Amino acid sequence: MKTNLIMKTEKNNKFIENKINNTISKHGATLLINKNKVIKNSITILKKINNCLVAPVIKSDGYGVGAILLTKILYECNYKDFFTGNIYEAINLRKKFKNINIYVLNCGIPFNLILIKKYNLIPVLNDISEIEFWINNIKKNTPCIIHIDSGMNRLGINIGDIKKKENKTLFKKLNIKFIMSHLACAEDKHNNMNKKQLSIFKKSRTLLCDITKTNVKSSICNSSGIWLGKNYHMDIVRPGAAFLGINPTKNPKNLLEETLELYTQIYQIREINKGETVGYGASFKASKKCNLAIISIGYAYGLSRLLSNIGSVFINNIEVKIIGRISMDLTVIDINSFKNNEIKSGQLVEIFGKNRSLEEFAKKNNTISYEIICKMARNIPKILI
Amino acid sequence: MKTNLIMKTEKNNKFIENKINNTISKHGATLLINKNKVIKNSITILKKINNCLVAPVIKSDGYGVGAILLTKILYECNYKDFFTGNIYEAINLRKKFKNINIYVLNCGIPFNLILIKKYNLIPVLNDISEIEFWINNIKKNTPCIIHIDSGMNRLGINIGDIKKKENKTLFKKLNIKFIMSHLACAEDKHNNMNKKQLSIFKKSRTLLCDITKTNVKSSICNSSGIWLGKNYHMDIVRPGAAFLGINPTKNPKNLLEETLELYTQIYQIREINKGETVGYGASFKASKKCNLAIISIGYAYGLSRLLSNIGSVFINNIEVKIIGRISMDLTVIDINSFKNNEIKSGQLVEIFGKNRSLEEFAKKNNTISYEIICKMARNIPKILI
Repeated sequence: MKTNLIMKTEKNNKFIENKINNTISKHGATLLINKNKVIKNSITILKKINNCLVAPVIKSDGYGVGAILLTKILYECNYKDFFTGNIYEAINLRKKFKNINIYVLNCGIPFNLILIKKYNLIPVLNDISEIEFWINNIKKNTPCIIHIDSGMNRLGINIGDIKKKENKTLFKKLNIKFIMSHLACAEDKHNNMNKKQLSIFKKSRTLLCDITKTNVKSSICNSSGIWLGKNYHMDIVRPGAAFLGINPTKNPKNLLEETLELYTQIYQIREINKGETVGYGASFKASKKCNLAIISIGYAYGLSRLLSNIGSVFINNIEVKIIGRISMDLTVIDINSFKNNEIKSGQLVEIFGKNRSLEEFAKKNNTISYEIICKMARNIPKILI
Repeated sequence: MKTNLIMKTEKNNKFIENKINNTISKHGATLLINKNKVIKNSITILKKINNCLVAPVIKSDGYGVGAILLTKILYECNYKDFFTGNIYEAINLRKKFKNINIYVLNCGIPFNLILIKKYNLIPVLNDISEIEFWINNIKKNTPCIIHIDSGMNRLGINIGDIKKKENKTLFKKLNIKFIMSHLACAEDKHNNMNKKQLSIFKKSRTLLCDITKTNVKSSICNSSGIWLGKNYHMDIVRPGAAFLGINPTKNPKNLLEETLELYTQIYQIREINKGETVGYGASFKASKKCNLAIISIGYAYGLSRLLSNIGSVFINNIEVKIIGRISMDLTVIDINSFKNNEIKSGQLVEIFGKNRSLEEFAKKNNTISYEIICKMARNIPKILI
């Protein structure tokens, strides 16, 4: 029977190797997450900042990697404050972690007040009507976060809203844990937008300090913002994808460790003759006798259909071409560059990882790393290595 | 506080309306699956064929819609034979359904024999080495399916493998439940590839009947194949996406009922001035004062980043433009065409559904319907209506 080649993990840990091979055999593919590298990225982030609080963002199921899995690692790193995208994510997180602060970026409409109270969540309030509702329905001094739009024109109140006389009484009634804003162009250090947003945000903060007669804490940095320098760090920073090693700057040299690797296996090897076609729509026609391999991954698991006939994968660290249209859970590749019998079914195939970063793979997909990992199918299993 | 407009479902069922609004409020979005339309599609499929067996394919988590959910509906329609993509999917299905036949298209490497026995699964054997392994490791007469490659050059044995003398003894030892093959160009009725594949498959069947001295049953139709006519139906057909209403032919008029609708809600409304920019990278600049709405969906939930600044959504059956870059779980849209106060936060927004089919939406994404639904994030909730 076919043999299954063993992948060498950094730890060369037999238990993990077996787990990887066993998982791929059952699911066709697996996403590896390198815990030590997540921790290294955490250290890199902490070195960039001074004494401000770090509150990881784990929205969209931890960028597709798994919110619980990611939070477990970060909790071990001593983080105690987490942002989720919506109420559902927040409740899931609370069920597993009792001793953390959970901030909810979008509390939905109608505002999910009952669940916020029940699960001890802290809402981010994004407009004046939410603030009014909050004041009218909670006990005095229940903490909240106020989102200020400093120029991205997505969520948040404007500086104009703060200046309005009729709103001042509202702000006075709030217990503002901190105010936050979001940078539109943080990955580009030289973009003027950054300074402009910081300036508007600082003015907003000063106004709110005056109104509330308190020292309002503030946060403007996402992952990329942290690399804009200390002026931007303020009291709280909110990295997310940086923990996973997604490049936070436009610098081609990523300062973080790549943590993710996607693998599949060769399921079958076949030879085709000149003139034969491959796959749906018969979009590839062989100009000579060819050796092909069929791998157990397709567009449902992170290999975009846009890569049909143009993409590539890696076998034994060698790049090989995708042939024909990518199917839902199968893809055909060209293995002509290997000697006969050098490649066997069961062999591991890298989609991204040691030979190609997630970022390079995303570029080939005409998108960003975030989208690739967020869209991986729900049934692709993750393994912590 | 903001009010939440109620969507009219076909059934106008208050319970379901509440469920939809409640779900979107917690998750930002929801995918509706119309059970009656799935059943109608099932009837349409049954009308196309004569007495052959219909074995639904529910791979890749039921094309992203949920394998268990889809199988439940189809089981109620009296289907008792199902194809899964891999062992993991098969086990999940077996845990919920005891009285169905489960066929596994890819049993992995190493071949998952123990799990096949434990969960009473029927493997599709894709090459000679799998057939040898099967014969050497199972009790006589354990049923299997043999996959024959009739020209797609993906998985399966070739007709040449059947003709080989040394393989004949192998085939004699098998209990072949049926043989199957897969069409490469079935959605295109006029493509010669179909006839060519059917001919090779029929020859393979005749050879196997001779070798095994049995009447070997056969299956070549996926969803699209069913629309190629009775010659192709043989003993078993294997529709999958047709149940969900994905157009099985190149005919622009879909003969099936669209079953899927994707909705989100307006979370916030804002006005911006001439010269202001929107979203990441500040890629949209307002040429005049604009009314915008921020909706609770982004690329992690099925709204591709490729649609930034060019895509659209529907509000009150009116198409409105996407403005700026699509974020992970938020998108900004242009609501200038509505009167002041006509649009309120909480209002439902259609991504695809009544005003635009999934197929049209997929075309705008430069892909096919299959890829859109397979890649929707794992945490987008589904509601059966």
